[in-house]
Parts: sequence; C-alpha cells; structure tokens
Amino acid sequence: MHTVHPKPVFPMGFRCASRNCGLKPEAPDLALFVSDVDAAAAAVFTRNHFAGAPVMLGRETIRAGRLRAVVVNSRVSNVATGARGLENARRMARAAAAEAGTTADHVLVSSTGVIGLQLPIEKIERGLRGAAADLQANPLVGALAIMTTDTRPKALAIGVGSATITWVAKGAGMIEPDMATMLVYIFTDAAFDAAILDRMLRQAVAVSFNMLSVDTDTSTSDTCAILANGLAGDVDESAFQAALTDGCLRVTEMLARDGEGATKLIRVTVHQAVNGTEARRVAKAIVNSPLIKTMAHGADPNVGRILMAVGKCFDCTIEPARTAATINGATVVENGLRADFDEPALRRALAGDTVDIEVRLGLGAGTATAFGCDLGKGYIDENAAYYSS
Amino acid sequence: MHTVHPKPVFPMGFRCASRNCGLKPEAPDLALFVSDVDAAAAAVFTRNHFAGAPVMLGRETIRAGRLRAVVVNSRVSNVATGARGLENARRMARAAAAEAGTTADHVLVSSTGVIGLQLPIEKIERGLRGAAADLQANPLVGALAIMTTDTRPKALAIGVGSATITWVAKGAGMIEPDMATMLVYIFTDAAFDAAILDRMLRQAVAVSFNMLSVDTDTSTSDTCAILANGLAGDVDESAFQAALTDGCLRVTEMLARDGEGATKLIRVTVHQAVNGTEARRVAKAIVNSPLIKTMAHGADPNVGRILMAVGKCFDCTIEPARTAATINGATVVENGLRADFDEPALRRALAGDTVDIEVRLGLGAGTATAFGCDLGKGYIDENAAYYSS
Repeated sequence: MHTVHPKPVFPMGFRCASRNCGLKPEAPDLALFVSDVDAAAAAVFTRNHFAGAPVMLGRETIRAGRLRAVVVNSRVSNVATGARGLENARRMARAAAAEAGTTADHVLVSSTGVIGLQLPIEKIERGLRGAAADLQANPLVGALAIMTTDTRPKALAIGVGSATITWVAKGAGMIEPDMATMLVYIFTDAAFDAAILDRMLRQAVAVSFNMLSVDTDTSTSDTCAILANGLAGDVDESAFQAALTDGCLRVTEMLARDGEGATKLIRVTVHQAVNGTEARRVAKAIVNSPLIKTMAHGADPNVGRILMAVGKCFDCTIEPARTAATINGATVVENGLRADFDEPALRRALAGDTVDIEVRLGLGAGTATAFGCDLGKGYIDENAAYYSS
Repeated sequence: MHTVHPKPVFPMGFRCASRNCGLKPEAPDLALFVSDVDAAAAAVFTRNHFAGAPVMLGRETIRAGRLRAVVVNSRVSNVATGARGLENARRMARAAAAEAGTTADHVLVSSTGVIGLQLPIEKIERGLRGAAADLQANPLVGALAIMTTDTRPKALAIGVGSATITWVAKGAGMIEPDMATMLVYIFTDAAFDAAILDRMLRQAVAVSFNMLSVDTDTSTSDTCAILANGLAGDVDESAFQAALTDGCLRVTEMLARDGEGATKLIRVTVHQAVNGTEARRVAKAIVNSPLIKTMAHGADPNVGRILMAVGKCFDCTIEPARTAATINGATVVENGLRADFDEPALRRALAGDTVDIEVRLGLGAGTATAFGCDLGKGYIDENAAYYSS
C-alpha cells in the first residue's frame, strides 16, 4: 500500500531553508518550511499548563485549518515569557510570512530550548531576511536546524498512491507526551481538507507519539502539525491513514532511539488487559520504570523488575498468577513466576539495539504498545548542565 | 516534647542479632529483632500487586496485633515465588520463633533483594540457630544486616516521656511508596494497644514515607511495622504521635539522602494548592522529574524545569500567572515567569547537600511536602548490573 523512500525527500511544492542566526554559536538554529501554495493543516499541541507562547499562538492559527509555512528556532523555547513572549512569537510569524509570500496567520511558529528566557527576536528577524532565496528540496536541512540535544537529524518520507508524506522531527528529552509530542512536522502533497487531516492526525498520534516516553517529563512546546498542499491530488483515505500511522510509528521509534543518553529502543506491548486504557497504563509503567530502563542499559536479565512494574499499577486489574512476559521472544515470566530461561541467550538479546518486552495479563482483549529507551549515563551528562552548556 | 538521642539505642526490652548465613559472600544478611515480652504491633505494607510472600504472610500475622520478633534477610526478596515461597516464609517465622521463645504467629518476616528467586531457606534456618545468644542492645547491628544497596546503616532513637522510640530502616532504590515503604521497623517501650498504634503509624507514614520517592518504582516488599512492648508504661498520646511523626520524617530524609547514586536530598513543598491531594500530586511530580533531579545533581539553575514539572500535572488546577517558586529561599519564579535572581548564588546553593524547592500555586490552602534525591551516574551503576553483581 505504501513504501518508505530510501532517502527523505519532500512532497511536491515543499521546500525548506535553515540559518544560524546567532542563538547557537555556529550550528543552524532557525528553520523555515514553505509550501508553494496554501495547504490544509491540522495540529496537536502539548497539554502542559505552561504551554509556550508559540503553542498559544499556534492554537489560534490552526483554527483556520490553513498554513503556508512553518518557522522554528532552537536554543530558546519562548516559554514562561508572558505578553512579551507572545508578541515575539507574532513577530516571528510576520517575519516568516514576508519570506513565504503569505500573511502571519498562515504561519505556524515553534520554539524549542531553554524555558523562561525571552526570545532574541531581532536576531531571528535578521536571520529570516532573505531565507526564501535558500529554500531547497532537502528535508534534512530543516531537520538539522531544529535539533537541540538530538544527536542526529530526523526525517522520513513515505510514498502512498500519487502522493508523498514527509516527516521532519526533533526530540530527545522532556518527552512524555499526553496529547501531541516534541516537534514533528508532516508535509504531504495529497489533497485532504483540514477536518479530515485533523482526524487522521489524531488517530496516528494516539498510537505513536502519545505512547512514547523518554523521561516522563512533558515539554511545554510539544507540537505535531500536518500540512497537505494537494499538489498530488486525491489519495485513498484509508491507504493514507495507514501510511500516516506507519510513518508516525517509525518516527516515534527514531525519537526513542535518540532519547538523551539512549543506546537502544525499548518497545513494550501489553496484551490481554481488561481494556485498552489499562493496557496503555501498564505499558507506560514498564517503559518508564527506571529499573527496567537501567536493566536494558546494562543488559542484565533482572526480569523480576517486570513484575514490579506491572504490580505498581495500583488502579489496574492485575492477577499475578495469570501474568506472563517475554523479552525478545524468550519467556521470562509464566503464571506470575520467573520462568526458567537461557540466561546467556537473554543477556545477548538485551545487549542488542532493540529490547522488546511483551506482557500478557490473561484478563481481556486490551492491548497497547509503548515506546521508550534505556537510561544511561549520557542522560545525566545531557541534563546536569543543559542550561549552562 | 521529645529529643533525638545522640546515638541510636533500643528501648527497654528490645535487642537484635545478625549473622551471615551465606546469602551474601561475607556481609551480614540476616537480622533478628526480639522483644523480651509480647508487644502490641501494627504494620503497613506495599500496595504492589506482586507483593512478596513475606508481605502476604505479614498481613495475616499482623491481624492479631501482637508481635514478639521480626526476622529479615537481604539478597533474595522471596517475591513471585508462589506456594513454595509462602511456605519458606512460614519456615523462616518458625525458625525465628524458636530462638525468640515464642510461636511463629508472633513473628513478622521480611525479605529484601532480587525478585523471582526462591529463598535458600535451609541456609536461613541454619543461620538462625543459636542467634538468641548473640542478641545485643545495638540497633545498628540489625540495620547493617538488612542493607541491600544502602551505603550506610540507618537507625534513629528519640526519647519521649519515659519511653524511647527506635527506628531501624533500609531502602535505597525501587522506592515510590503509596501505602508503606521499604523496610522500616519501629520499636518502643511505650504502652499502647494495637489499634491506637495502627492509627498513629498510618498518620505518621502518610506525611513521611508515603511522600518519599527515589525512582518512582514501588517495591514488592515494602513494610513498615511498629512494636510497643509497654515496659516504659504510659506515654501521652499526642506527644508520642509528634515524636513518631518527627522520627519518621527524619528517617525519610535519611532514606532519600542515601537513594541509589544520590548526593543530596531534594525536598519539595507545595503551598496554596486547591487542596491537599493536588498539593501532594504537584510535589511528587516535581520531586520525581528526572530533569529536576539532574538539575539538582549538576547544580545547574535551569529553573524553567520547575514550571514544566508543575505544568505536566494535567489533572490539577494550575494558573500559570499565579505560580511562584523559590529554591533554598531565593525567588526563581514569580507570576509564572522566571524571576531575576543571583545566578552564581543559586548555583552555590544547589551545590549543597539539600535542595529545598517551594512552590506557591496561589489558589487555596492545600499544602504538602515530598522527599527525593538527585539523579546521578551512581544510579545507573547500581542498577545496570544489580542482578548480576
């Protein structure tokens, strides 16, 4: 139905540019994404009470369901900055609109970085001047400029019917979404109206970005937006939904693997919970457990910790004697008891770059998959001096 | 009203002994606490669904409200061990009862260590034989034997009226209690009946051990018990309650400071929440945030993270513009915005051994204090190979 492109490319009519405008010492810190024509659009944002100024503005902008451009800076998040912060976000939209040949109400603004500092808006305005001349068809150019503690740029393209869907994303820490997550921009040349895009986006996000947790901390800037400029015409809706969800899952795994200090992906699937809500809760409890994360990091088969993590879901129905678990296919818990398993083999499996934990609760039909990463010293290095570095 | 003893001593009529019975290579791994006479008793246990066999037996034992002895082993927790595990816990109670001159139903059993392995019960039975001859009046002897990843033994004694209250505790990781916590034994020669002890214990635990979180993971073995043998006669109940709560708070801070890899205590007090429940939830969200924990570890004044952590309490009432915060007395957030503060001074304050974060929500009269610790590389070292080491 759909195929992943070997390299990330843009759909028809989308381009991006990046600049260093002086927020970071040298690396690009400003990205502009532009569609040649107006695009139908939808977005989901963080639920954090201290949503940043760009998120407040974005909620207003997205109501009309039309976007022409997205502008993003890194290093300073424009969060907890009051009325001046909101005015700076508006100025950033105006400056980007001038380059994209549109009006500020067709521009989605994002800022990511340290919380609580005012945006150096003059630097950003200066940086945007003339950026239109640099617009190019390589999504990685934009992906590089929106990185904070990411170790690599994240972009993906999938072909579906006559259309292309392209993801550009960033996110490494402060990631426990509950609605949207980190910064993810999705561009497509398929033709859909904003209401349908919104529905499809929410469906894809629910099983992907909303099931990702790097560190249980919810960012104040999380934004996931989709722009559909229609240049490739109509695409079958269910094929598009499948491609959209698949791509969101792939990008979720990219983000998890590049979690701060992470060396591997942890994927937890819970089956046979009494319902989907409890399956999600148990899967998240396991994927978030520091003791599971360090077990994966050290490739140490301390499988009792799976039972601990299942058991601490006080509000969920759990029958210990019905609980079973596997790690990378090997049974490690049966009937609520530690199973006999080949310990050296399990140790080797845990040492790989993906740890798959599956838990069967033996109660019902609820199922869910959560995504996370191991916890290593790199996380401490990143975060013990993030502000100062 | 009450005074902390300079060194931990036992109340009248309590003694303990310890042994190495072969669970650990050399260190003591078995402790026996005995009262000369029957004591009124109360206890609270973990809410984890996979409560260990000793917890299951303990819930049964404590119903009668009388104990004569407590027996504890470290290294193997006897959790997820089925019917055989429960029988082993009963055998451990019988072996301890023989030494204490009582019956098994007057012995509280605890085991702490790796989950999912059967207890080497013969070693424990052999180890207990003759232990009565070693009983002595130093609580640190017992405190040493129940350590797992603790770096130091934990004991405390407080005098109140004619009586003494003595705490012996252990706990360093897998600590996010929700009912009781880790292993904490409280001995007193004051005279109270079991029902009053139970009420006083729950009141003290609610504001102390239940507000402690080292790593959000809830142990399967958490037990907090109090034994009152009455040898010192009656003590004023409110004075005793005050001393009991004070001591539990002090032991909570001891446990937090010795959290796995911890270098400092983090104490978070939330004021002016709409009610106590929301105050507790916000305080726990802050104390548990990996980004707050690493900020404290690195003494990096990235104070925006406090807003992030408050803001991620989706289910609580938060009005950003009313939110204020201090760190060790210095205002860092005012009206929901980062305040101007003396950054070098704050950096010095964060580098100390106690980080006090106070948050005012400006909404109501709800208040709560939560206790935790920083997150450093030592936590990774402890937990990436705990099972194997």
